[in-house]
Amino acid sequence: MNHTIETILNHRSIRKFTDDKLTEEQIHTLIQAAQQASSSSNVMAYTIIGVTDPFLKEELRKVSGQPYVENNGHLFVFCGDLHRISQLATREEQVQMQETLESTEQFIVTTIDAALSAQNLAIAAESMGLGICFLGSLRNDIYHVSELLRLPKYVIPLFGMAVGTPAHRPELKPRLPFEAVYHENKYQSFESQQTAISAYDIELQNYYQHRTSNTRTDTWTEQMIRKYQNTVRMDVSSYVKDQKLNKR
Amino acid sequence: MNHTIETILNHRSIRKFTDDKLTEEQIHTLIQAAQQASSSSNVMAYTIIGVTDPFLKEELRKVSGQPYVENNGHLFVFCGDLHRISQLATREEQVQMQETLESTEQFIVTTIDAALSAQNLAIAAESMGLGICFLGSLRNDIYHVSELLRLPKYVIPLFGMAVGTPAHRPELKPRLPFEAVYHENKYQSFESQQTAISAYDIELQNYYQHRTSNTRTDTWTEQMIRKYQNTVRMDVSSYVKDQKLNKR
Repeated sequence: MNHTIETILNHRSIRKFTDDKLTEEQIHTLIQAAQQASSSSNVMAYTIIGVTDPFLKEELRKVSGQPYVENNGHLFVFCGDLHRISQLATREEQVQMQETLESTEQFIVTTIDAALSAQNLAIAAESMGLGICFLGSLRNDIYHVSELLRLPKYVIPLFGMAVGTPAHRPELKPRLPFEAVYHENKYQSFESQQTAISAYDIELQNYYQHRTSNTRTDTWTEQMIRKYQNTVRMDVSSYVKDQKLNKR
Repeated sequence: MNHTIETILNHRSIRKFTDDKLTEEQIHTLIQAAQQASSSSNVMAYTIIGVTDPFLKEELRKVSGQPYVENNGHLFVFCGDLHRISQLATREEQVQMQETLESTEQFIVTTIDAALSAQNLAIAAESMGLGICFLGSLRNDIYHVSELLRLPKYVIPLFGMAVGTPAHRPELKPRLPFEAVYHENKYQSFESQQTAISAYDIELQNYYQHRTSNTRTDTWTEQMIRKYQNTVRMDVSSYVKDQKLNKR
């Protein structure tokens, strides 16, 4: 197994960082890595906002409810961005571009573009000995985050990423078995995934009971059912449409 | 610079592969790498379908119009998947989960989860000396792809990835300058990105004129305006909603 695959397989989310800040050089390397990810038709439909302003970090921490949004080596916010492209055009051309810009297809493009670049940044950071945590929690109050970062139309904050020197080393969290996630030639029925899922329920329960902090006793199945019975972040839909994305 | 970052920065899309097929062991390693990516609240809301059936590969090649969809070492299709989670629940619980399952928020979750896992697979493959190409082109006829792969409700094909031994070595494609893509503390106006974009227009034009195959003369700005004036894949929106995702 080579170093890169070792790095990938050693991923765990880091939620406690030392006070060390990333250097400008580190930030440049990470962004360069992010940018080298594939992009649909080379549209590069994303913007990464580095947040250093203490007031902004405090506000974003409040939105997320997670202290590591404030306390980290650097905070990145990954935005889907079709604004840049829309502004390349004349007014007249913009009118003709509107239908495409507002389509669900382009919403998918911008979300995937941003995610691919983020995962490159994550792997690059971890290869440098840094730790990372994805922050979907910024969508807890997406309207407020959008205002804080002054996002224009056609730009949306998708998630954040806290990066820094790890101040803890959590256990590796087990994943669903291979058989549940990888199918051949067609989607395999839920019934045929069920043995793998039951095995995972036991494995995850065991992991939760024995991990060093925040122990719990529920299974994956129980967690998922509970989680999806709650409606959260239902305003993301109207927000995205207000930003003129995912409208048709 | 370490090996992992070198691998990331050396990424180029490979569109011509030798006849060598990936081994079972390689596929296992790649899927394991994919699975170790972060996942929102551990939902692991994706399924990866490996396509080896010659009829299916031919059909998918026709959808994409790209020969390397058929001729490669292995073909993966990355699907957003909330079906697995929905099926964990009783009928009664499913009714209570419906609003969340159908939300734009969960559509974002499943798209990002799939993309993060895909980028891990891409980097792992490249670290092993393999080449990859993302295939958004499978969305050219998303209804047909969905039928071919027998996707149930709450599952959508987001993109494919062709993997294999490279049979060519394209030049590295330049990316937008750092200043255009990385902003500090707030979104920087298009005007302030314009110098960087103009520089990129010249750089990309130069790249296109001098690359060894498929030379062209247009700038990035011209390409983007032309591209976004065409409406393509407008049926993705209704397809996704038919699959009961992104509905509210």
